[in-house]
Amino acid sequence: MSHEPRVLLGPGPSNVHPRVFQAMISPILGYLDPVFLDAMDETMSRLRYLFQTQNELTVTLPGTGMAAMEAAICNVVEPGDEVIVGIHGFFGQRMAEIVERHGGTAIKVEVGFGQVIGADQIGQALDDHPNAKMVAVVHGETSSGIGQPLAEIGKLVRDRGKLFLVDTVCSLGGADIPVGDLLIDICYSGGQKCIGGPAGISCITLNDRAQEVLQARSNAVDTWYLDLMLIKKYWFADRVYHHTAPGPMVFALKEALEIIQEEGLENRVARHKEAGDLLKNGLTDLGLELFGDPENRLSMLTCVMIPDGADDADVRGRLLNDFGIEIVGGFGPLKGKAWRIGLMGYSATERNVHYLLAALREILGA
Amino acid sequence: MSHEPRVLLGPGPSNVHPRVFQAMISPILGYLDPVFLDAMDETMSRLRYLFQTQNELTVTLPGTGMAAMEAAICNVVEPGDEVIVGIHGFFGQRMAEIVERHGGTAIKVEVGFGQVIGADQIGQALDDHPNAKMVAVVHGETSSGIGQPLAEIGKLVRDRGKLFLVDTVCSLGGADIPVGDLLIDICYSGGQKCIGGPAGISCITLNDRAQEVLQARSNAVDTWYLDLMLIKKYWFADRVYHHTAPGPMVFALKEALEIIQEEGLENRVARHKEAGDLLKNGLTDLGLELFGDPENRLSMLTCVMIPDGADDADVRGRLLNDFGIEIVGGFGPLKGKAWRIGLMGYSATERNVHYLLAALREILGA
Repeated sequence: MSHEPRVLLGPGPSNVHPRVFQAMISPILGYLDPVFLDAMDETMSRLRYLFQTQNELTVTLPGTGMAAMEAAICNVVEPGDEVIVGIHGFFGQRMAEIVERHGGTAIKVEVGFGQVIGADQIGQALDDHPNAKMVAVVHGETSSGIGQPLAEIGKLVRDRGKLFLVDTVCSLGGADIPVGDLLIDICYSGGQKCIGGPAGISCITLNDRAQEVLQARSNAVDTWYLDLMLIKKYWFADRVYHHTAPGPMVFALKEALEIIQEEGLENRVARHKEAGDLLKNGLTDLGLELFGDPENRLSMLTCVMIPDGADDADVRGRLLNDFGIEIVGGFGPLKGKAWRIGLMGYSATERNVHYLLAALREILGA
Repeated sequence: MSHEPRVLLGPGPSNVHPRVFQAMISPILGYLDPVFLDAMDETMSRLRYLFQTQNELTVTLPGTGMAAMEAAICNVVEPGDEVIVGIHGFFGQRMAEIVERHGGTAIKVEVGFGQVIGADQIGQALDDHPNAKMVAVVHGETSSGIGQPLAEIGKLVRDRGKLFLVDTVCSLGGADIPVGDLLIDICYSGGQKCIGGPAGISCITLNDRAQEVLQARSNAVDTWYLDLMLIKKYWFADRVYHHTAPGPMVFALKEALEIIQEEGLENRVARHKEAGDLLKNGLTDLGLELFGDPENRLSMLTCVMIPDGADDADVRGRLLNDFGIEIVGGFGPLKGKAWRIGLMGYSATERNVHYLLAALREILGA
C-alpha cells in the first residue's frame, strides 16, 4: 500500500464502503458487452430510486460533479438565453459563470454567504425577466454548509413555465430530495459525497419538459463531450458510440447505489441527520461557533468558525498527520476563518464524530 | 464476482495489469492531500516519459479520451478560426465536428478509409488557407487500423508557424511517438488502450507554443470543465480548486505509467509490434484478408475483412460466449464487413493471439 488510509471528513471525496472498492475492480468489460449494458440499465434504475423520480433520462456522466453542472447548463443554454441563478455561495457563482461561458446571460439573485435565497426574490426576478429560460439553484452549498429550501421556488418556476435546475452534488444520498415532488426539471449530483461512490463520475436526471427544451434547440450544444442527446443515444436502444464508458467507475457507483437501496433512503437521511446533529452539538460543547443560518444548516456539511488563538493550517495539519483525519478550510469570505467538516455517505458515522471531537479537544486544549 | 473476466481484444478498454487494479483501490485521499499532490507530480513526470517530451503542461484530464479530444480543440479554437483537419477515418471526422461545435471552421483534408493523408495534401491546404490556426490529425485511427505518418506534416506545420495537434488515443504506449521530435504542439491520449490503464481518464501535453496561443485568446474557452488554463492552476503551484480529482483513476493511471517505465518504451513498442505481426500473419494463414494500406497498418489494432459465409454477429457472439474473447465490428463503411482486433497494453501478448486464432479457426471451420 502506497499510503495510510484517511478518515475523510472534508467536503468529498469521502471514504467508501469496501464493497464499492470491490465492485470497482470487477473484470473490465467492453462498452457494448451485454453484461455491461445490463449494468448500465441497473444503474439507471437505482439512480431513479435515489432521485425519487420516474424520469427515463437518468444516467451517469463520464466526469466529476462539475462536468454534470456544465452539462445541465450547456444543454439548455443557447446564445442570448437568460438564466436566473440563485447564489448563496461559491457553487452558485460558478453556475452563473458557466451560463456566461455558453453565451447566456446570468441574472444573479444573490444573498450573503450562509444565508438562503427567498422564494420572493426568485419571484421578483421572474417578474423582471419574463423571458428567462431557467432558474438554477444549488441545494447544498459545499462552500457554506447551508441547504437551500426548494419547494416554494419549484412551484413558482413551474407556474411561469420555466425550467428548474437544482445542484445536489453535496446533498443527494444524505438529504431527502424528491425530484418529482419538488418540481425539479433537471437535477444532478456527483459520486464522491453522500452517494458514497468514487470521484470522477456523476449523475443527472431530466424530465420530459427539460428534454423538450433540449430537442427544440436552434443550435447544436457547444460542447460535444457533454451533449446529453448524444449521451442518451448510448444509454438507450440505439447504443451509438459516444465515449468509452468508464467501466470501473460505473461498477463502483452501481454498488454504492445498491448499498443506498439496501439501507433505504429514509434511514440514510436519518443517519446523516443524527451524525450531523451529534457533530454540531459536540462542536458547540467545545465552545465553537457554527456558521450560517441556523434554520438551514446541512446535515452532511458543517461550517464552524475557527476559535481565537487557533491556527487554521496548524490544526488541520495536526488532524491529518497525528490523527489521519481530513477536514478542510473555509472558502471565499471564510478562508482562514472557518473549517468545513463533512459527514457524507460511508463517512457519516457517530464513531467518526466521536473521533474528530476527541482529536479537536486534544489539539485545541478545550 | 458479478461476471466472468473477458479477454479484451477490441479497440479498448483492454485488460489491465493486476497492479493497476490494486492501485485503483488505494486508500482515498482528499484532492489537496499532500500525498495526493505528490502522486499528481509523479504522474506528470511519468507522462512526460510516455510522450517523450519535457513539456511542463503534461497532465491528466478528468474524462475519457473524447474529453481530451474536445479539450485539445476547444482551448485553441475561437469563433471564426480555421482548423485544417486531416481525416482518414471516424475520429478525424469527429475532430472536424468538434471544431465546428466550438464556432470554428474545419478545413477537411479527406482520404478514403484505410488510407493515409499525404504531407503534400496538408501543404496544399496550408497554401489555400493561410489563416488556419492549427492542423489536426489522428495518428492511430481506431476505426480503420491505420497509422498516419507524422514527421513530414510536423515540419510543414512548424514551418508555417501553425499549431500541430495529434490524437494518439489508440496508439500511445504501443507506438513510438516522440512528441518533441515530431514537432507536435498538442498531443493527447486515453487511459484504456495501449497505456494499460482504466477508461475514464485521459492525458494531454502542450508545449510553450501552444500555451502562448491559449493565453492570447480573445474570448474565454466556451467550456468550463475542460478549460486547460483552469486545470493547470490545480495541477501546479496555485492548487486552485477546479474539480474534485478522480483519485482512483489517477492512482490507476500512475501505476500503469510506472509499469510502462519498468518495461521501457522501446521494449513495449516491440512487444506490440511482435503481437501485431503474429496476429496479421495468423489471420492471413487462416485465409482472411487484412484491410487498408499495407505500409501503414497499426500494431495495436488490426482491421480484417469478414470472410464470405461468416456471420458478423454470430462469430463475435460465439467468441464472447464460448471463449470469453471480445473483438469488435467494423465502423462506418466497414460495418458488417470487417472486424477490429486490438492488442493493446496488457492485452498485447502472443498468448492472446494464439488463443484468438485457435478460437477463430474453430468457429470459422478454417
